[in-house]
Amino acid sequence: MKIGIVGLGSMGYGMAASLLRAGHEVVGSDVNDAQVQRLRSEGGSAKDLAAAAPGLDAVVIVVLNAQQTEQVLFGDDGIVPRLPEGAVVITCVTVAPDFARSAAERCSARNLHFLDAPISGGSVKAANGKLSIMASGTPDAFARARPALDAMAETVFELGDAAGSGSAMKAVNQMLAGVHIAAMAEALTFGITQGISAEAFMTVIPRCAGTSWMLENRAPHVVAGDYTPHSAVDIWPKDLGIVLDVAATAGFTAPIATAALQQFVATSQMGLGREDDAAIAKLYARDAGITLPSGSAQA
Amino acid sequence: MKIGIVGLGSMGYGMAASLLRAGHEVVGSDVNDAQVQRLRSEGGSAKDLAAAAPGLDAVVIVVLNAQQTEQVLFGDDGIVPRLPEGAVVITCVTVAPDFARSAAERCSARNLHFLDAPISGGSVKAANGKLSIMASGTPDAFARARPALDAMAETVFELGDAAGSGSAMKAVNQMLAGVHIAAMAEALTFGITQGISAEAFMTVIPRCAGTSWMLENRAPHVVAGDYTPHSAVDIWPKDLGIVLDVAATAGFTAPIATAALQQFVATSQMGLGREDDAAIAKLYARDAGITLPSGSAQA
Repeated sequence: MKIGIVGLGSMGYGMAASLLRAGHEVVGSDVNDAQVQRLRSEGGSAKDLAAAAPGLDAVVIVVLNAQQTEQVLFGDDGIVPRLPEGAVVITCVTVAPDFARSAAERCSARNLHFLDAPISGGSVKAANGKLSIMASGTPDAFARARPALDAMAETVFELGDAAGSGSAMKAVNQMLAGVHIAAMAEALTFGITQGISAEAFMTVIPRCAGTSWMLENRAPHVVAGDYTPHSAVDIWPKDLGIVLDVAATAGFTAPIATAALQQFVATSQMGLGREDDAAIAKLYARDAGITLPSGSAQA
Repeated sequence: MKIGIVGLGSMGYGMAASLLRAGHEVVGSDVNDAQVQRLRSEGGSAKDLAAAAPGLDAVVIVVLNAQQTEQVLFGDDGIVPRLPEGAVVITCVTVAPDFARSAAERCSARNLHFLDAPISGGSVKAANGKLSIMASGTPDAFARARPALDAMAETVFELGDAAGSGSAMKAVNQMLAGVHIAAMAEALTFGITQGISAEAFMTVIPRCAGTSWMLENRAPHVVAGDYTPHSAVDIWPKDLGIVLDVAATAGFTAPIATAALQQFVATSQMGLGREDDAAIAKLYARDAGITLPSGSAQA
């Protein structure tokens, strides 16, 4: 298949590489020209995506948010009017379900298929074609997207025949993931105030009922004092913001996610927005007057 | 060994049974006479523990809280003055680290050993001798307690040579466990407002980054509509209350645990305190005006 991909950040680049590895022809686009050149060096094309659009079977969108997705698909140089009928638009961005439904309707009006397909798993899984994809869309959209999904994902959850359900499940997952990162930081730093070292925390808690996937993934960053951004703090004001906007629209109050959002916002305001999201522990450490483990990568 | 055990609830009874199975002589005590009779039918003795105390090598305390522990050990009919020198007191109750330190000092003044030994794992693991125990105390206390620990636990975390560290680690674990149960309920019910069924939630989230041990353990209760109390709602106002008291004493603010505590208190005030702690989902469902799955065991 000939597949366009918009957004070659840590997730999108890995997905593009996985598509190439699976034998697809890949046309990549990103505001960062270095990433485009890098993709070209691995065998991808990097010409103007708008120009390439009439020849694409599918386009994968991996930009930051709904606003960028709107621009890429429907803006002045948007790709939707240029795609051939029957092509499939696969949006992997975390957006509100209503946005996904609206985008699907507008694609359908142009006789394009649309798959609401948010991703989970991080940059390493993206690079290895091992993502989880929470997808919803018509059977035709799934059928058209299948070769691309197979190249990018280990697991494709099929969540129904209408756009919106994929984004809803992603919102549920992000609500939990964000809360669990913040809770990890709260508990790890609380433990330090009680004489429990970060190392002892990591020895015991992953084997007890208090563990979570995020705790086991992120607490080692705190123990190592290494805040190299695998996933940045600033993801969370965005993603939990979407979650809470969607919740508010539904009349749903989410006090725990709200508390977590506030902690991520405060962490970002400390100037740590581009550090790894485990740096939320630095907010708690500052407020409690304790010292976290220091590593070579720590400021 | 001849071992006394005070508190034959769902945890303590299973621990007593595990001690019996390992060949120990067990003297059980509980305010609920039915549990005492049941232990007798399995081969335990059930005479007055105060009378039996001079012959005990160890006593295991599995009561509800610090107040009951204080009474059992040091109250009017307290066991501590009656135990022989060199016996070991093993407290498995969730208490503040300062209480554990104080109890250890008072036992030491009577030439008794003291092991600060909170437990984790639930009633099934208790019955099977597969608990996790977060223990701290002197090497002598560990040595004296070892045969009992081996009978009750699959994993004994040795957290230092002074009482307090065991309770501190338990507080850290409970902080996380309580938050994760509440976050599970928040996310599962939020999902329902977005058209994600509880079943779909359970299919997808355990395989994504949003999962936690508690989510995988408790969300099935919500899916089944079965709130048979494996661990009751009312555990959490108590345990998170201890956590936040300890935190406040240390000048540590814990906004996420605070939000979770409020949700458990509100659930208890709905009259659901004795239901399974997954019933916190009913609070969210009521507030959001949604319907949870109903099962035969649900009111």
